[in-house]
Amino acid sequence: MRALVYGGPGKKEWTDVPDPVIRDASDAIVGVDTTTICGTDLHILKGDVPEVTSGRILGHEAVGTVEAVGAAVTTVRPGDRVLVSCISSCGRCRYCREGRYGQCLGGGGWVLGHLIDGTQAEYVRIPFADTSLYKLPASVTDEEGVMLSDILPTSYEVGVLNGKVRPADIVAVVGAGPIGLAATMTSRLFSPRHVVAIDLADSRLEMSKHFGADETINSGREDAVERIKAMTDGFGADVVIEAVGVPETFELCTALVRPGGHVANIGVHGKPASLALDKLWAADVTITTGLVDTYSTPTLLQMVVTGQLSTKPFGTHHFALAEIEQAYTTFANAAESHALKVVLTK
Amino acid sequence: MRALVYGGPGKKEWTDVPDPVIRDASDAIVGVDTTTICGTDLHILKGDVPEVTSGRILGHEAVGTVEAVGAAVTTVRPGDRVLVSCISSCGRCRYCREGRYGQCLGGGGWVLGHLIDGTQAEYVRIPFADTSLYKLPASVTDEEGVMLSDILPTSYEVGVLNGKVRPADIVAVVGAGPIGLAATMTSRLFSPRHVVAIDLADSRLEMSKHFGADETINSGREDAVERIKAMTDGFGADVVIEAVGVPETFELCTALVRPGGHVANIGVHGKPASLALDKLWAADVTITTGLVDTYSTPTLLQMVVTGQLSTKPFGTHHFALAEIEQAYTTFANAAESHALKVVLTK
Amino acid sequence: MRALVYGGPGKKEWTDVPDPVIRDASDAIVGVDTTTICGTDLHILKGDVPEVTSGRILGHEAVGTVEAVGAAVTTVRPGDRVLVSCISSCGRCRYCREGRYGQCLGGGGWVLGHLIDGTQAEYVRIPFADTSLYKLPASVTDEEGVMLSDILPTSYEVGVLNGKVRPADIVAVVGAGPIGLAATMTSRLFSPRHVVAIDLADSRLEMSKHFGADETINSGREDAVERIKAMTDGFGADVVIEAVGVPETFELCTALVRPGGHVANIGVHGKPASLALDKLWAADVTITTGLVDTYSTPTLLQMVVTGQLSTKPFGTHHFALAEIEQAYTTFANAAESHALKVVLTK
Amino acid sequence: MRALVYGGPGKKEWTDVPDPVIRDASDAIVGVDTTTICGTDLHILKGDVPEVTSGRILGHEAVGTVEAVGAAVTTVRPGDRVLVSCISSCGRCRYCREGRYGQCLGGGGWVLGHLIDGTQAEYVRIPFADTSLYKLPASVTDEEGVMLSDILPTSYEVGVLNGKVRPADIVAVVGAGPIGLAATMTSRLFSPRHVVAIDLADSRLEMSKHFGADETINSGREDAVERIKAMTDGFGADVVIEAVGVPETFELCTALVRPGGHVANIGVHGKPASLALDKLWAADVTITTGLVDTYSTPTLLQMVVTGQLSTKPFGTHHFALAEIEQAYTTFANAAESHALKVVLTK
Repeated sequence: MRALVYGGPGKKEWTDVPDPVIRDASDAIVGVDTTTICGTDLHILKGDVPEVTSGRILGHEAVGTVEAVGAAVTTVRPGDRVLVSCISSCGRCRYCREGRYGQCLGGGGWVLGHLIDGTQAEYVRIPFADTSLYKLPASVTDEEGVMLSDILPTSYEVGVLNGKVRPADIVAVVGAGPIGLAATMTSRLFSPRHVVAIDLADSRLEMSKHFGADETINSGREDAVERIKAMTDGFGADVVIEAVGVPETFELCTALVRPGGHVANIGVHGKPASLALDKLWAADVTITTGLVDTYSTPTLLQMVVTGQLSTKPFGTHHFALAEIEQAYTTFANAAESHALKVVLTK
Repeated sequence: MRALVYGGPGKKEWTDVPDPVIRDASDAIVGVDTTTICGTDLHILKGDVPEVTSGRILGHEAVGTVEAVGAAVTTVRPGDRVLVSCISSCGRCRYCREGRYGQCLGGGGWVLGHLIDGTQAEYVRIPFADTSLYKLPASVTDEEGVMLSDILPTSYEVGVLNGKVRPADIVAVVGAGPIGLAATMTSRLFSPRHVVAIDLADSRLEMSKHFGADETINSGREDAVERIKAMTDGFGADVVIEAVGVPETFELCTALVRPGGHVANIGVHGKPASLALDKLWAADVTITTGLVDTYSTPTLLQMVVTGQLSTKPFGTHHFALAEIEQAYTTFANAAESHALKVVLTK
Repeated sequence: MRALVYGGPGKKEWTDVPDPVIRDASDAIVGVDTTTICGTDLHILKGDVPEVTSGRILGHEAVGTVEAVGAAVTTVRPGDRVLVSCISSCGRCRYCREGRYGQCLGGGGWVLGHLIDGTQAEYVRIPFADTSLYKLPASVTDEEGVMLSDILPTSYEVGVLNGKVRPADIVAVVGAGPIGLAATMTSRLFSPRHVVAIDLADSRLEMSKHFGADETINSGREDAVERIKAMTDGFGADVVIEAVGVPETFELCTALVRPGGHVANIGVHGKPASLALDKLWAADVTITTGLVDTYSTPTLLQMVVTGQLSTKPFGTHHFALAEIEQAYTTFANAAESHALKVVLTK
Repeated sequence: MRALVYGGPGKKEWTDVPDPVIRDASDAIVGVDTTTICGTDLHILKGDVPEVTSGRILGHEAVGTVEAVGAAVTTVRPGDRVLVSCISSCGRCRYCREGRYGQCLGGGGWVLGHLIDGTQAEYVRIPFADTSLYKLPASVTDEEGVMLSDILPTSYEVGVLNGKVRPADIVAVVGAGPIGLAATMTSRLFSPRHVVAIDLADSRLEMSKHFGADETINSGREDAVERIKAMTDGFGADVVIEAVGVPETFELCTALVRPGGHVANIGVHGKPASLALDKLWAADVTITTGLVDTYSTPTLLQMVVTGQLSTKPFGTHHFALAEIEQAYTTFANAAESHALKVVLTK
């Protein structure tokens, strides 16, 4: 088959590789119908994720068709149309039994396109298929579905649910890339009073209005702390969601939150940040970090089926799977292309 | 009356001042029978708390006898023996109505010995008496009671409850001063598997064993992270409680916690700390800060009455109220005096 | 002044009575601008609430203007336009300090029009004014505001929050009177998949669609259990809210709920019901009862201000205050008049 | 092999049956080293559980040794000493993924000795071995371990955790049989003020003192409601645990609970009970039912290892496995034999 193979920092190639095969009784082989590219894939290509070694097929998001299953697989069968979750779950370890699949100790967690070959390929081997694949209802298109591999559950679980958004809250979302926009959209499920998008780029802020933001702050031009205080009688936001992953944005989040509020970090960080404990020690603040577990995937899928959530607006650019190198270029140049998610189809 | 008056950084004097009087209908005047000194008082004397101005009477802990009450006070009357809480609560504002009295917007919060005159005096004016004083049962001695003004509710609420200690947990308490020891003691209420005291001083670690620690780590001589990992199959502690207040100890806490665990900061910090988001972003960690609210005071008092908690061991040195300057010297030199709490009695 | 005075079962009169006066330092006298009638008032008139004695002024809902305040009142002053909460809170007792104002031990709870004179009058004395009145923003009309005295917080707290409605849930609301409709409306704040209204009257079911119900069941003509099972793959509803108050409807609720689901009782019951423990013992069901606490009143008010909630549709019939006896007739004959809430204005 | 085979109401026989064999890839065959008899087994023998058909091998509790495993089993292997949980978990269905294994939709839940052959035999087939067996540490004896098959997790999850026992609570446990005693013991993990055992038999009440009860009420001779009110300033108990399973005891529980308190039903009921909604509708009471999920089994096992829990006192009578019919007689006549759990060993 053909697949996108990582060749060390800065190198990738759409090339011929052997087809994946069933190795364990709980495996499935899935033919990839639709996939996409994640910001994390760009990090890997920069060499920021050293566990990814040369020769690895990238990608951890897909909608596909089951081709074959191992002897122990009982919930999907060849021909089933499935969502591939970015998180695999052994279903047996201490963390999986608590619903913390992202911390799986039994060979799962984030492994696709990371520790094992991923979804940017014609076929992919999925370990623990029974607990890592979700059958896709006919009414959900591939493109709608692939947004549930990663960005929807990540933003919902690690941002909105960890942040404990409640009715009438003021929610500030720092970062209006795909994850921040998905957090903006899914925070609306709890009827906050305002969702305030904060970013440096006016184009992304403009975009955020289509995903549920009703206030925007360009933090390059405006004092975000002052703006939020002005909206909240001087208190600060009830919930602040970090969706960038650099020290400055995290530090902004802790300045934006009200006493008693929550800061939910989603961003993937490469460096420590400064935590202003001299200001925060008495402020009753809760800060959470997290890798997505995807325990919310069935719920989110349900809401796509009923139309409570629309994932269509995320897919801004479309390519054939074989054009993946061009798709990477478009996605990597989002500042110019205004790409949110690039959709690759067989 | 006589009182301990702050005279600017480094200066304090036990001297004559006017008696306090009822100012508001919700005030009470309490005759101080027993008081004590808090680490925060030492911070004030160093000039670290600039809101405290010259002329302020220090102290926010006391057991006393009600002398007079304002027209609106209904739950205590002259002659009642009461616990003075370190936190005053207006009972009316947004935060008080959520039980977050420490964040009171109506003139309460931590005001005693801070923004208004405090308890290191023969008499003290207590605002919002109905929601800031607790009648003391006859079976609780003054000395037992005064430990509930601050250290017991602080360690229990901000450490143990925020940290969500559960049965069979491994709890690490960094800092074995009075607050750390009280956190050690009260974490036992939830039946953790081990409570591990971590400190630089062997004498304090030895002391911690009398308060419920069953493992100790001298982090000056031993690698605390390695020791905790060895106790936890490499995972880290379920709950880590910071009871010191310097960057190094907070940073140690975030290195000690397991994926999915809690870091509960109690320490009063004067500087920012570094938060290792590069390591923590995917670790499902919850970090909390907080000022005590004292919502747990009735519960803790109940447990002192029944003997479920013993606060007696905290009172290591005893003085007459008039000897308070000597008591400060003893408390400030805890490294030599081994003082935990110094008890001052009328 | 004139007021509606209860004269024993079946008797009421709009008549002259003495004006109320400040009795306690925490009292306020409020001039009633707008009031309404509750189903509970009808119960009282039937003699079902024996604590209400002859001579009592009825009513526990109002918007008004503060006329006078006691010496200890600090948060409202004469001339303030206020919402009168159906629940008074002493703010000092064990239950008030937990936010359970409905269980107040200090002279509050549901007292208005019950144990003390109420709001169906030109003036009313409100005890504990600081913790029982809410200033009304200018943008909220009297009629919008009066719906927050009782029906909105009751349905939201005792129905929706106790029932723990979550995104994508199936919520069944049994009873489409004012409380059931308010529960239907406020359950939408958590983005359930469907809200199913169940009632015996087609007219009320039709009305429920304007309050957020997207499915209706006439349980007189249809098998509600079968209908709900058909909507839920045989599981049952995630949350069932009882808003009637007779054994049959409560028993229906426990038949409608799925394993692991919640039954939240709001109905005022006069008789025991049968609890099918033979079917439910293994079903992981949670059943809650409750009197409203009104802790959510500020949040609900906020959402009326921003337009997230619209309380306008509840006011179906309008009268002058002096026409209150006619208004009772209209409200009592809701089956014919289709009255939801009758609004009485000065 | 030999096994105890159900022959219809009133009939059972220790007889020869075919050895169990691996049917599914996720199965294990376990050689039974130690088993016990549950009150539910007596219900089955009375014919109260019609799903149990003639020919079924009874029993759902055991400690044993793995003899063989299916192709998909990865966490246990032949020779491993294991605890057999009374609940099997497919690990894949909606309920298993929420930790509600008792409600498993994929072929698990309570199946052993109920819908498939059970543990009162020389060998037993365990479906979903990876998620239904727990490796037993060498320091835990068979007899200590077998108490964790059912009674410890049942009483802890369905009684103590559902009931939300907290420090300083008054806990009333109605029923001092094995489950009630286990609830008494495990409620102590949360440091309640008092645990009050309530039963009709003085001998069981006497026994309860050895399991952590510090007050006892013989409800045949004393008015339990009055006694509990006298202990609680008239409020009632914070948490009431039902551990009998008849209408009268459930109804007693709802009379014992304080406003705002919890009633946690563990009892297996054959009939509906009366729910006094006329008294409870305004009382903020939470009532829970539940089948054990066994999510707490690893935690409980950990606490047996460290000695925080001692399960030894439950095993009052000991038999060889072949003497099981005699053991049933002893267990069924607990009133005379004072048997708690009878322990059957290979």
